[in-house]
Amino acid sequence: MDLNKQGAFFGDYENQDSALNVNDGVKQPPIINPYLKINKKPAIKSVDEYMDGIVSGDRVLLSQAITLVESTLPSHRTVATQIIQRCQKISSGKRTMRIGITGVPGVGKSTFIEAFGSHITSRGHKLAVLAIDPSSEKTKGSILGDKTRMETLVHDPHAFIRPSPSEGSLGGVARKTRETILLCEAAGYDVIFIETVGVGQSETAVHSMSDFFLLLMLSGAGDDLQGIKRGIMEMSDLIAITKADGSNVDKANLAKALYANALHLFPPTESGWVPTAVTSSAVDGTGLDDILAKIEEYFKLVWDNGYYERHRREQARYWMYESINETLKNMFYENPRVEGLLPDYERAVLDGQLESFSAAEELIEKYQGKI
Amino acid sequence: MDLNKQGAFFGDYENQDSALNVNDGVKQPPIINPYLKINKKPAIKSVDEYMDGIVSGDRVLLSQAITLVESTLPSHRTVATQIIQRCQKISSGKRTMRIGITGVPGVGKSTFIEAFGSHITSRGHKLAVLAIDPSSEKTKGSILGDKTRMETLVHDPHAFIRPSPSEGSLGGVARKTRETILLCEAAGYDVIFIETVGVGQSETAVHSMSDFFLLLMLSGAGDDLQGIKRGIMEMSDLIAITKADGSNVDKANLAKALYANALHLFPPTESGWVPTAVTSSAVDGTGLDDILAKIEEYFKLVWDNGYYERHRREQARYWMYESINETLKNMFYENPRVEGLLPDYERAVLDGQLESFSAAEELIEKYQGKI
Repeated sequence: MDLNKQGAFFGDYENQDSALNVNDGVKQPPIINPYLKINKKPAIKSVDEYMDGIVSGDRVLLSQAITLVESTLPSHRTVATQIIQRCQKISSGKRTMRIGITGVPGVGKSTFIEAFGSHITSRGHKLAVLAIDPSSEKTKGSILGDKTRMETLVHDPHAFIRPSPSEGSLGGVARKTRETILLCEAAGYDVIFIETVGVGQSETAVHSMSDFFLLLMLSGAGDDLQGIKRGIMEMSDLIAITKADGSNVDKANLAKALYANALHLFPPTESGWVPTAVTSSAVDGTGLDDILAKIEEYFKLVWDNGYYERHRREQARYWMYESINETLKNMFYENPRVEGLLPDYERAVLDGQLESFSAAEELIEKYQGKI
Repeated sequence: MDLNKQGAFFGDYENQDSALNVNDGVKQPPIINPYLKINKKPAIKSVDEYMDGIVSGDRVLLSQAITLVESTLPSHRTVATQIIQRCQKISSGKRTMRIGITGVPGVGKSTFIEAFGSHITSRGHKLAVLAIDPSSEKTKGSILGDKTRMETLVHDPHAFIRPSPSEGSLGGVARKTRETILLCEAAGYDVIFIETVGVGQSETAVHSMSDFFLLLMLSGAGDDLQGIKRGIMEMSDLIAITKADGSNVDKANLAKALYANALHLFPPTESGWVPTAVTSSAVDGTGLDDILAKIEEYFKLVWDNGYYERHRREQARYWMYESINETLKNMFYENPRVEGLLPDYERAVLDGQLESFSAAEELIEKYQGKI
């Protein structure tokens, strides 16, 4: 369901099978959703109403506000922008833990998040689980496309789960996810998981909005690595070898030692943190304490040495420039003349008939109407 | 000396101390340069004259053509574009080896290139050595800023050394380096080194124009890694541990084993190549044969399995889009209104007063004259 293309999201619930299920992030049969029965045609509320709801921990209003953030309707954007601004100010006064989590399909990511998320809320944290994979990527393994595996967490009152926006491009999804982080933090969630499949471009985006980057790996080095993009390992602050249970324990411990050695060879991180590897099992809870301890140790370090604030500021600047550049590109590539010409130019470049830079130059000149 | 800002490069040699030294890439006292004495005021030649010179191996004409490629004067660009197009067609019919070489200052990169380059030409190859570091980066360790260490190679008739263009931005330098590769290949150079210091953004650019990526490392893992950017190791097709001579041999062999193990843990490369590590010494020639053998093995693999052509085509497409995107950004960031507003917006974003995406949106609207 693409909310943004419908144009009547808040006014036409009857024809939508699960609009509010998307809103509160919990998959339930539409008929028993109490909100749907009470408010068949809810209108956009005032910014103050949303803000009051968000800061007082009202999950329904938080969900609705996030839906506004995800919408591209101008009337929604106007309200959303004000909400985001106000949440940004609340959020920037808090110390939260934004944790990027990636791993290829098969690594047991949803099971891990279920187990580790519950562990975190049992320790008194409030956890929001977000995702960054555009819908087209979902089938490749995004856990939030398959919430049936997260039965405990979806019913945990201290956890808030929100699927990735259904709209297409990575740039758009990244923006909305980053804005959603601010809303969740303003709502009192102090730990944010940002989940992605480890096979596309999205890890870089997740890395650019996380404080801490957790890579889930399987115990067998080699074949299992198929699918993980090169460069991700060097981004990681912690590698957790999953499924370290039963007959797999020895293999997992070996993998942990190998990865720990490999991480040791990498250049030092800017944060001063020394990345390491641990084993974990969602089945018997192995390593969940270790992982949380490592994360807390990391945050103690970066809160103390100033890297946390500095890095957050750098990320804010990064996203300003990234967003500008993304918009400039969209303006160009969605220009009808460019759209018409691009395939021919690309073919000529691929065939070695036209040099890359000459092709670029001509296309820009045509975009500007010079030729 | 910034040739591009002078506007009269080909018509006013008298006031330039070493214009032709830059051209042929060899540092010599200006007074004994024979070309300078014969042609005090050379004019731009015809495209055909340059092409005849390039394909017949005339190094002076090749150098002059490269200077045109590096120039931003419109009259130079017009001729340069035609030369590039014609060289592109010649080059695309050849199988050459484009080898990116990186390593931090202290790793002995210039000494390595001197030794390994001579080894390569002694085996019958024609070698062009290019660099991609903008002048501002040169002091950080670019070998070509210090050609005194490459005495053998600069006098080798089978080697052609060209310093990085002196003009500023990485995007501009990358473009010119890529175009220069085409000219060198049309001139019969079958091995191209593209050298960069391993501390900036430029390795990604080098990686995107190379077939094979060679990382030079020192033997001690740990402290020596300071300065190498994270992610570079995973880009590498081969790690050469330098300075493996004298009392350093054992340490170098240990480092080689450690890196080889670490590389083994990385995900497989798209090329099907299995990256590995070797030791080398520019002093006693250790490992130069091994490195060349590895490189030849790599090219045999990718020539046979089709990756070479596919990857070159992907790189050509990459550079078309990269160049478009770079131009779009330049148009925006050099816009006087944007230039005036940007510092305030950036400050507001850094201080948490303005959300990154709202700042981007407002700046774009002002750029477009909407507000």
